[in-house]
Amino acid sequence: MKIGVIMGSKSDLPTMNECVNILKEFGIEHEVKIVSAHRTPDLMYTYAKEAKNRGIEVIVAGAGGAAHLPGMVASLTDLPVIGVPIESKTLKGIDSLLSIVQMPGGVPVATVAIGGAKNAGLLAIKILALKDEKISKKIEEYRKNMERMILDERI
Amino acid sequence: MKIGVIMGSKSDLPTMNECVNILKEFGIEHEVKIVSAHRTPDLMYTYAKEAKNRGIEVIVAGAGGAAHLPGMVASLTDLPVIGVPIESKTLKGIDSLLSIVQMPGGVPVATVAIGGAKNAGLLAIKILALKDEKISKKIEEYRKNMERMILDERI
Amino acid sequence: MKIGVIMGSKSDLPTMNECVNILKEFGIEHEVKIVSAHRTPDLMYTYAKEAKNRGIEVIVAGAGGAAHLPGMVASLTDLPVIGVPIESKTLKGIDSLLSIVQMPGGVPVATVAIGGAKNAGLLAIKILALKDEKISKKIEEYRKNMERMILDERI
Amino acid sequence: MKIGVIMGSKSDLPTMNECVNILKEFGIEHEVKIVSAHRTPDLMYTYAKEAKNRGIEVIVAGAGGAAHLPGMVASLTDLPVIGVPIESKTLKGIDSLLSIVQMPGGVPVATVAIGGAKNAGLLAIKILALKDEKISKKIEEYRKNMERMILDERI
Amino acid sequence: MKIGVIMGSKSDLPTMNECVNILKEFGIEHEVKIVSAHRTPDLMYTYAKEAKNRGIEVIVAGAGGAAHLPGMVASLTDLPVIGVPIESKTLKGIDSLLSIVQMPGGVPVATVAIGGAKNAGLLAIKILALKDEKISKKIEEYRKNMERMILDERI
Amino acid sequence: MKIGVIMGSKSDLPTMNECVNILKEFGIEHEVKIVSAHRTPDLMYTYAKEAKNRGIEVIVAGAGGAAHLPGMVASLTDLPVIGVPIESKTLKGIDSLLSIVQMPGGVPVATVAIGGAKNAGLLAIKILALKDEKISKKIEEYRKNMERMILDERI
Amino acid sequence: MKIGVIMGSKSDLPTMNECVNILKEFGIEHEVKIVSAHRTPDLMYTYAKEAKNRGIEVIVAGAGGAAHLPGMVASLTDLPVIGVPIESKTLKGIDSLLSIVQMPGGVPVATVAIGGAKNAGLLAIKILALKDEKISKKIEEYRKNMERMILDERI
Amino acid sequence: MKIGVIMGSKSDLPTMNECVNILKEFGIEHEVKIVSAHRTPDLMYTYAKEAKNRGIEVIVAGAGGAAHLPGMVASLTDLPVIGVPIESKTLKGIDSLLSIVQMPGGVPVATVAIGGAKNAGLLAIKILALKDEKISKKIEEYRKNMERMILDERI
Repeated sequence: MKIGVIMGSKSDLPTMNECVNILKEFGIEHEVKIVSAHRTPDLMYTYAKEAKNRGIEVIVAGAGGAAHLPGMVASLTDLPVIGVPIESKTLKGIDSLLSIVQMPGGVPVATVAIGGAKNAGLLAIKILALKDEKISKKIEEYRKNMERMILDERI
Repeated sequence: MKIGVIMGSKSDLPTMNECVNILKEFGIEHEVKIVSAHRTPDLMYTYAKEAKNRGIEVIVAGAGGAAHLPGMVASLTDLPVIGVPIESKTLKGIDSLLSIVQMPGGVPVATVAIGGAKNAGLLAIKILALKDEKISKKIEEYRKNMERMILDERI
Repeated sequence: MKIGVIMGSKSDLPTMNECVNILKEFGIEHEVKIVSAHRTPDLMYTYAKEAKNRGIEVIVAGAGGAAHLPGMVASLTDLPVIGVPIESKTLKGIDSLLSIVQMPGGVPVATVAIGGAKNAGLLAIKILALKDEKISKKIEEYRKNMERMILDERI
Repeated sequence: MKIGVIMGSKSDLPTMNECVNILKEFGIEHEVKIVSAHRTPDLMYTYAKEAKNRGIEVIVAGAGGAAHLPGMVASLTDLPVIGVPIESKTLKGIDSLLSIVQMPGGVPVATVAIGGAKNAGLLAIKILALKDEKISKKIEEYRKNMERMILDERI
Repeated sequence: MKIGVIMGSKSDLPTMNECVNILKEFGIEHEVKIVSAHRTPDLMYTYAKEAKNRGIEVIVAGAGGAAHLPGMVASLTDLPVIGVPIESKTLKGIDSLLSIVQMPGGVPVATVAIGGAKNAGLLAIKILALKDEKISKKIEEYRKNMERMILDERI
Repeated sequence: MKIGVIMGSKSDLPTMNECVNILKEFGIEHEVKIVSAHRTPDLMYTYAKEAKNRGIEVIVAGAGGAAHLPGMVASLTDLPVIGVPIESKTLKGIDSLLSIVQMPGGVPVATVAIGGAKNAGLLAIKILALKDEKISKKIEEYRKNMERMILDERI
Repeated sequence: MKIGVIMGSKSDLPTMNECVNILKEFGIEHEVKIVSAHRTPDLMYTYAKEAKNRGIEVIVAGAGGAAHLPGMVASLTDLPVIGVPIESKTLKGIDSLLSIVQMPGGVPVATVAIGGAKNAGLLAIKILALKDEKISKKIEEYRKNMERMILDERI
Repeated sequence: MKIGVIMGSKSDLPTMNECVNILKEFGIEHEVKIVSAHRTPDLMYTYAKEAKNRGIEVIVAGAGGAAHLPGMVASLTDLPVIGVPIESKTLKGIDSLLSIVQMPGGVPVATVAIGGAKNAGLLAIKILALKDEKISKKIEEYRKNMERMILDERI
């Protein structure tokens, strides 16, 4: 289990699945769980504190509105935590973004774009690639394919 | 110990003292502590979970930036929690405000203005007044004095 | 009549019904009225000034745009007032939020999220729970159920 | 007494004096008073309801933060009300602006720029000019002088 | 011809018709024209400069995006000008609002809410009422009816 | 006279001088004038309408707040117009930026950063360079120097 | 090939076609290409560096979100670059706008409105008109037609 | 050389030094360079393309305003890139934040708070810790010290 993908609510799943899909595409071991900072604070504590010992290396956490999940998990683990601001109904995710990215000194959260779950997955993969030559090769190919797809596009 | 006043950092104290001062003015029992969601998550858990049994009735929590303290405390206690968004350096507290007020359904935080610690104290007092006739009387007088002060003002 | 639920316009009712429903779920006595700060200022004055004597303990007020109802009611009563910013058509409720939360020192409004009527109800209930053991028990159960629902979720 | 200039707090006076000065420059009868929507709601009611009978023709109201004074006065009188959003400490007056300008249908407030008290005075004067040929002449001259001052400027 | 209602584009007409309708309801003489600051600048100059001599007393100008019409007309006439920020496609009218309300000292525009054309009409009527007892009476009735409608509402 | 540099107020001069200085550095003929859309609308009309015949090729216009100068000039001339949003007191130039950049289809303004007068000058120079080999060479050198300066920097 | 029209993604084409259409209407030679700063950085480098030698005179670049294409191209060429902020999904293009317009001193991008591709085309044409009398005439006619269309409109 | 710390301008150094200091505190090999996306695009290309081969494992890039450095570097390397939005003069870094965080799918940038250079360093260290037991131990101690410092604070 390399990557833990968690989110505050089942309604975040359509967004977070873009993260899951990229992890699958790269063949990275991962788990997906609903862990709410506000509604299951004890589960969150346990999850964050045990993640490292369970072999998790990077945690990707998605949350919307007053989005506390990524920052709270980051405060409870030494693992790198990637935060995905989920688009919120009224403020379109600017609340989610600021709640996740504006962390105080000492507790970083690696924040991606509003709704940027795919990039959260890619970032986790890039981190794993630092100690796994095979993943590193795949990342290189992924980037080249992305380039080729645009070069081959016809208007 | 009726009111627990907590804040994420000692640098929040000048703001939060306006809350403390109004509690003193009304003679309300209270305690003041530094409890950081991000830097002392275990302390925060214990504080929030034990507050009710220790006799605390309302918790006032101030925090700035990605301000998770009020919401996290609210998720761990059944007491009413009042959140004070502390003015932040770059975004002037709009990040603090959104991080505190935009809570998901099920976990309310009673949010006051950016830097509105005095009002947080008054709100706590108004809540206590519901079961204490003496406090209720003082609130009434307080409001009348506020009115009189303006009526007596000379331009 | 413990809780007064008021709103500026009938069009706010779909939002405010989430407050009413949670009060019903907890079996809390309440009333629901249209009281507009701008279109029925005299009614608002009377309502706010008489609420306490009529036995109301907490007022929940919803309003949108230049949302003056919660703040004005708060200026006319000693009761705790909870403000619900209603989502507005063009600015999505950021105008409602700022009009409600940015109150001056001396007149607090306990503000919840944009559209957060359910949380306004819960906050009112948490306040009543301070002097009613039965409500207090129910709140405890409510929080546990909320937790269990997420723990039981299957992805 | 043609113009009533009111404001929520004595601290608004430095801004609102720019309104007073332009009224003096045009020789318009006026009065200046502290009338707070939140701290002196009864005074505000009386002021707004009696203004017309006292001969006031236009009310200029300045307020900051959750700025309810202009809108509430507009709801209580048939006179035209001009609102001046006062610059606020943290949000620089964007809260004041939205609280004043985003009024619901039926209750207009003529809003000027953040801190635009001088223009509030000029707008009141332009309104009075509609039935006073002498004021109308002065407005014409004022505009020409303004133009001439810029034409005469040397870089 | 008492009131001139102008707008930058025919696409603003659905919004501005709310102004026209209230003027009709009050039986106020008015005219409606497309006058674009950017696409018909000469027409705008002529319109603004001749309005007063043609008997216009108040100009209501609606515009969206970089909304220059109200401010430019205000710079070319001594009449009171009321600006209506039209909701824009991407920024929802916050650009229109700031372009209209943030006028420099010396050239006021009486700004109403985003899309607030009805209130623009009412404001114009309140201004005319200052010298017309009949209109004044109608405004009074209008306000009472508005109040009654809410008082009669059933939830 | 190749470039016309205009601004709404003498207080914009410190900002706009960065444009003037870069024009001087490149030895480009230019003129600098105070032309206010709101306070000298007739001067603005004449200036914009005659600029082309007077040999001006590009107009750089700086303005703040409800910044109408660049857009109005663009509506009155066929020359390319570059707009410089001047930092405003309360809203820091976000009002100036939106008032300048959000122009309707048909009337473009080439907008630069808030306070970006130097870049406005460079843009004008790049446009002139399209038909002047000497200026084109200088631009090339300018870019190389800029690069070299950073390469030579020592931390 | 006078004008190069590039964009970061094929999904930008519906917006950018408004630029292409106006170029066609004026009979201006142009090319349209997908060039992504982030996914085809090498292509972007080559495109920007060779554009001038290939006879391109103005580059119009559209991009959304963290929109780096216009600014990066501007840093690699001496040609004038016009940036079109594409409306983004969550933040409606305010991110695109700020990413494009807030360029540092030395590297200007001529920014148009969010989604303002038509104006980007017109601006490019206005620049070409400086050295082509025929285009200059067409621009003049275009402006007159635009004026006539509005003058002929019937409400 | 494990960590490459780059920034767009020497004026970013006071902010970025907080990153450098934490790297020093942890004894992590690193280099610090001025690499501007806009003023030294060729240097940026070379730097980003060669970083991996030179043994760099994580790149921390700080930039302000239209901040393109982190995103462009991320498009040119397979290494994880951490972006630090530098506080900008007028918009206080909200432009920097959006320019860095809102990256399109396929090219992630791990974004930290405005001015959050210290957290950028810590995040880089947390990533290195995944394959270095000694760094991992130090991170654990760092977190404990941070906690202890707050627990030891006296109000």
